[in-house]
Formats: sequence, structure tokens, C-alpha cells
Amino acid sequence: MSYFDNFLKTNQAYADLHGTEHLPQKPKTQVAIVTCMDSRLHVAQALGLALGDAHILRNAGGRVTDDVIRSLVISQQQLGTREIVVLHHTDCGAETFTNEDFRGQLTRDLGVDVHDKDFLPFSDVEESVREDIAILRQSPLIPDDVVISGAIYDVDTGRMREVR
Amino acid sequence: MSYFDNFLKTNQAYADLHGTEHLPQKPKTQVAIVTCMDSRLHVAQALGLALGDAHILRNAGGRVTDDVIRSLVISQQQLGTREIVVLHHTDCGAETFTNEDFRGQLTRDLGVDVHDKDFLPFSDVEESVREDIAILRQSPLIPDDVVISGAIYDVDTGRMREVR
Repeated sequence: MSYFDNFLKTNQAYADLHGTEHLPQKPKTQVAIVTCMDSRLHVAQALGLALGDAHILRNAGGRVTDDVIRSLVISQQQLGTREIVVLHHTDCGAETFTNEDFRGQLTRDLGVDVHDKDFLPFSDVEESVREDIAILRQSPLIPDDVVISGAIYDVDTGRMREVR
Repeated sequence: MSYFDNFLKTNQAYADLHGTEHLPQKPKTQVAIVTCMDSRLHVAQALGLALGDAHILRNAGGRVTDDVIRSLVISQQQLGTREIVVLHHTDCGAETFTNEDFRGQLTRDLGVDVHDKDFLPFSDVEESVREDIAILRQSPLIPDDVVISGAIYDVDTGRMREVR
């Protein structure tokens, strides 16, 4: 039993309304948004993005990892973005565990030794946004003139507020 | 000049209509979607996802990296997902360069030595989906009974088709 078939069906209805239009690869706003995979955040709707407007990068927590840097370098140096928004959110799954407990759980449940793996949990969502902005500012791969903003999205109200 | 202020303003209008509702952290469909950051793919709309339905992971290319595995382990072992969809797309930016050329460009333009960095470009989008599914199936951190599907999204037509 898979849910994928439902997505395929729903997508056919979406495509019927979509029509055929070729938009450029380069995002119109020149912005890349780094945010969490959370199911309660629909980025395009919440930020008012049209198709073609902005790159959207998502992982657990919206953390700035090596893979996010890889993606941002492609976004900027291949596809012309010049601005980054780091958007974390309230009630994040990354606030509900510690590395130590989670590693123990994985060893127990999956039989895998992950003692050197950092799952990037956090306990203060403002602090996590500031930490991730600092990582971006320190990266030699992100030019100094790239504009970087931080914000927190409230999954209960849909409201975003800036973190300074 | 930053675009972020526009997002904040548009979001206020979105939040005014959002109302206040607390949805659970655990995605309703128990699915995590791994896809590309491309600006022409709005995942929730294209797959008919409601708020709370599914985790959405996005990076350059929709490639399965260590960070995607980190996120999927949290998605599955903390938040109960049991199915993965790997969704790549037509006209991807990851098809427009090679590691060698891109490394040279970065050394020239940013003065950074990235000779050991793999930016994960690809030249065949069906093959890249199959490769990433294979990485998931080989990972000891992804249980064997997790359902994994692959698909390609056409950014011109909005239509998704399965890759077998």
C-alpha cells in the first residue's frame, strides 16, 4: 500500500489546470529560502511565491549544512540568486530530542552505530536561526555582499516574524 | 535593498486568512518527499498536499545526500513517516554543468579551492532518480520495509510521471 499513487492522481488534475509555459531556470526574485521539511509549512503560499520566484531548500530543522551550502553555491553561481532567507519555525521536531538519546534509539531500533552523527537538534529557535546565519556569513563560498535575513514561522498562526 | 521585506508583508496577508489551528508534528500521510529546490516546482500544490500532510525535503537536484539521510531518519524515527518519494524534474540546473567546470569557476570567481567537493550534477534525469533510490535502499538507516517511489516532474506542464 503506497500513498504515491494518490499523488500521481492528484497531480493529473493539477497538470490539467497548469497549462504549458516555459519559465526560466533562474529565480525571478533572486532569493533562496532555507527552511524546515515540516509538513505544516507550505512555503510558496506562506510567502506569496509565484512559480519561478525563488529557490526553496528544506531539511530537518532548516539547518545550514554542507549540503545546503552546496545547493546555495549552485543557486548563486549557476542560477543568479543574491539573497538568502533562513526560516525556522515554532514546534519544530528538531527541538524534541537530543543527539545522545536519538543515537541510542537508532542503535537499539535499527542496530546502526551513529555515534559520530550530528542530527542538529536545537532548543532555542531564535538561537538556531542566528547560528545558521553565522555559518553562512563565515562560509568562503557565500560572497559577503549576499543579503541574509532570518525569520521564524508560527505553524499555528501562519505568521512569520523577523529574527534580528 | 532586500526582497525579504516583501515576503514579510505578503505573509501578513496569508496569516490573516490562516486562522489559528494546531496540527500535529507527525505528517498525516506518513510520506517524505525528496525533491529539488527549483523555483518552478511548488510541491504542495503539484501533489495536492494539505497543511500537515507530508515532509518536503529540497536541495539542488533533489539528490540523496548525507543531509537528506539525516533528515529522513528524523522524519521516520521521530515523526513516523514510512514512505519516500524521490522527485526530480525536467530542465534541472544540475544538468547544466560538470563538477570540473564548476570547480574551476568557483576557484576563479570566489578564490576558493573546492577540488574535493561533489556538486552532484547529472546528465540523465531518469538515471539520477534511480541512483538516489539505490542510495536509499542501501542505507542501513532506512528500514527495508519503507516504500520508495521515483518520479519526474515536468516544469513546463506541471505533470509528474513515475520512474520505474
